[in-house]
Formats: sequence, C-alpha cells, structure tokens
Amino acid sequence: MAITFYCASGSPPAWRVWLALEHKRLPYTLRMLSFSGGDLKTEDFARLNPRKKVPVLTDGELTLYESIAIVEYLDDRYPDAGDGRLFPEDLKARALTRRLIQEVDHYLAPAVGPMLREVFYKPEEERDGAVIAAGREKLAAELRLFEGELRGDYLVGPVTAADHALYAMLALTVRADLKDPRTNVRGLIGPKLADWMGRIEALPYYEKTYPPHWKPV
Amino acid sequence: MAITFYCASGSPPAWRVWLALEHKRLPYTLRMLSFSGGDLKTEDFARLNPRKKVPVLTDGELTLYESIAIVEYLDDRYPDAGDGRLFPEDLKARALTRRLIQEVDHYLAPAVGPMLREVFYKPEEERDGAVIAAGREKLAAELRLFEGELRGDYLVGPVTAADHALYAMLALTVRADLKDPRTNVRGLIGPKLADWMGRIEALPYYEKTYPPHWKPV
Repeated sequence: MAITFYCASGSPPAWRVWLALEHKRLPYTLRMLSFSGGDLKTEDFARLNPRKKVPVLTDGELTLYESIAIVEYLDDRYPDAGDGRLFPEDLKARALTRRLIQEVDHYLAPAVGPMLREVFYKPEEERDGAVIAAGREKLAAELRLFEGELRGDYLVGPVTAADHALYAMLALTVRADLKDPRTNVRGLIGPKLADWMGRIEALPYYEKTYPPHWKPV
Repeated sequence: MAITFYCASGSPPAWRVWLALEHKRLPYTLRMLSFSGGDLKTEDFARLNPRKKVPVLTDGELTLYESIAIVEYLDDRYPDAGDGRLFPEDLKARALTRRLIQEVDHYLAPAVGPMLREVFYKPEEERDGAVIAAGREKLAAELRLFEGELRGDYLVGPVTAADHALYAMLALTVRADLKDPRTNVRGLIGPKLADWMGRIEALPYYEKTYPPHWKPV
C-alpha cells in the first residue's frame, strides 16, 4: 500500500477525501496543488485526471478520481482501518449515507454555486446583489432539509462520509461571509446544524485537514 | 421483499433504476408517474421524497431516493440476483464503475442540460441557436472521453451500473435530434459508443424499460 493524495486547499470534494484518509488513519503522501500556481493545468496532472480536477488518489497501481468513487474505494479496501467504516454496514444506514452525499452534490452545491462564484471570484463592486440574494434563498431551503436530517450527533448514527461531504461544502459556503457580509450564511444555519459543525470541528483529525490557505497568517 | 418503484417516463435517473431492477430480475410494482399530469407535485409524493423527484424506491420499511443510492442499495441487498452485480466485486473495477457514474452526473449531464432545455421545453422559434451550438461543443468533448473509455463490449468488463447511467443520459440526448435537427447528436457519437449503444439496446430486458411515451403511437 502506497497512497498518494492530490489535493487543493479549500476544494470541498478534495476535503472529503482528506477527512476520509485521516478518519481511517491511513499513511499517505500529500501532494498539495495550487490552483493559482497552475498546478492543475499541467500535462503531468492531466495524465492522472484528464479532467484536471482534484481530488486524485493513487494506491499502488490504481489511479482514481471523482471524490465519491475515492471515498467508497477507501472504505471497501480498508473497511476497518482507524475509526472504521464511512459507509455503515447496515444497509438502510448505508443507503441514507449515499443519498445524503448525492443531495450535497445534486442540490446543495448547485444552489450556492452562483453566489460563491460572485463572492470568491469578483471584486466587491462587480458583484450582483440579486445573485447573492437568490443564492441565500436557495441555501435557506437546503439548510432546512439538512437540519431536519439531524436526529442525533451525526447525520447517520456514527460519523460517515455524509458528514464529511456536507461539512466541507458548508464550511466553504460559510467562508463567503468573510468576503461579503451580504451572504450572511451563518445567519441561515439552524441550531442543530451549528452544533453539528462544532462536533465535526472537534474531531481529532479535523485540524490537520483544515485548508492551509484559510489559516490566518 | 416488496419493492415499489416510482418512475417517470424518460427520466435518465429513473431509467437507471428500472434497468437495475430488470437486470436483477427482481419483482416490483411499477408506479409510472406523469410529469405533465402533476403526479410529482402531490403531497402524497412529497411524503416519499420531499424534493418531489423520481426515482423513489420503497423496499419493505425502506424509502429511498437519489438514483445512485438506490442502485447501490439494490446491489448490496440482492448482489447475486438475476444477471448479478452492477458494481463488480473487484475493487478496481468497482471504483471505475463509480467514477464513470459520477462523470455522467458531474460533467455529461450539465454539459447537455441547457441544450436539452432549449429543445424539449421551448417552441422552435424561441430556441437560442447559440445555446444549442455551445451544448454540441461540450457534448463532443464529453463523448470523446467516454469513447476512450470503451475498451471492450461494455465500459467496465461486464454490464455495470455505469453502462446503465451513461446509456440513459445519452438516449435522452440523442432524442433531441427528433425535436431539432440542429442538435445532430447522432453525428457526434463515435463508432465505439454507437456500437455500445446497440449492445445496450439488445439486452434482453431493454425493451421493457423503454420510456413509454417515446414509443410510436
């Protein structure tokens, strides 16, 4: 086993994989690529993933991309490593874990995408307030659904890949508030989700995976 | 075991589940819902899926939505039924199957989405030719990648859930040609993908799952 993990700071899909590797306490070589440095646009990287996206994971002869495929692979290959399964063995809980991850990708991410692009990629004077307002409205509806899913400490019994997926997307979304107070994402997060975010942030491996370029300098 | 499958004619995610049920030769009750009849907007249906989308599958006590979660569930619950596993046991093949499904959802579907909305939801005189042209260009790039994945009769050794996912999306896309010749999707499909589509259409269970409202009247 010789795992290499190609990551980029702050990418929600890459963060899922990082959290999974740490949850399972697997040894790996971290290759932190820089978006702004053009690391994802090189021919060398395109040989790993023709779509030129992170995350990519190699494990011996296997080269794999698409975060869900990677996290499922790690769980299939090393089911009992570290803190154990990220997709529970119980079929109902397993199905719920997968459903929630799909909902993050198919609904939450598209709901906030235009708002995040406005805030992260445009200077303040060029931002469209209507896009931000529409994004907040869609986000509020999504957060109500996810708040309703929290019946215990985590989304599905113990910590699963669904917690990692939702957390990484929400953490990026909350960060918009630092760039533009109009987003006020914090103000939309209900009490159960806020407590749950705190629990994820208290996981022993959380700090290690915190996006390097988000740290105060 | 008492499976009920809520479908709508022509929905690519629902079609995946239908193909999976037939591949596994599982008994199920088919509930064919009508988009135009408003069947997906009822309160009864919202109790099954608050997002008011198909597919939904119930199996005894379990109610599940999101097509990938459903197909993975069927494979976990009934691994050897009918024609067998839709996610191969070999971990590398299993990972590739999942990666390809994610690529259909994360790249192919968004690439063709605006073009399909133009063609299926607008009268010819209101359609924007630039949207169709841009859609064709993105589709061509996607089809080159998927054509390159076809090294044998199917995407990953035997028929898998990846074949079902790609086929359902492509079949809907090809159908755009009937509505507007400018899409000319057929003209973009390479020889290996065209042959592969023919093999899917020759599967013994294919006809049964053909979208009812696509049949000539």
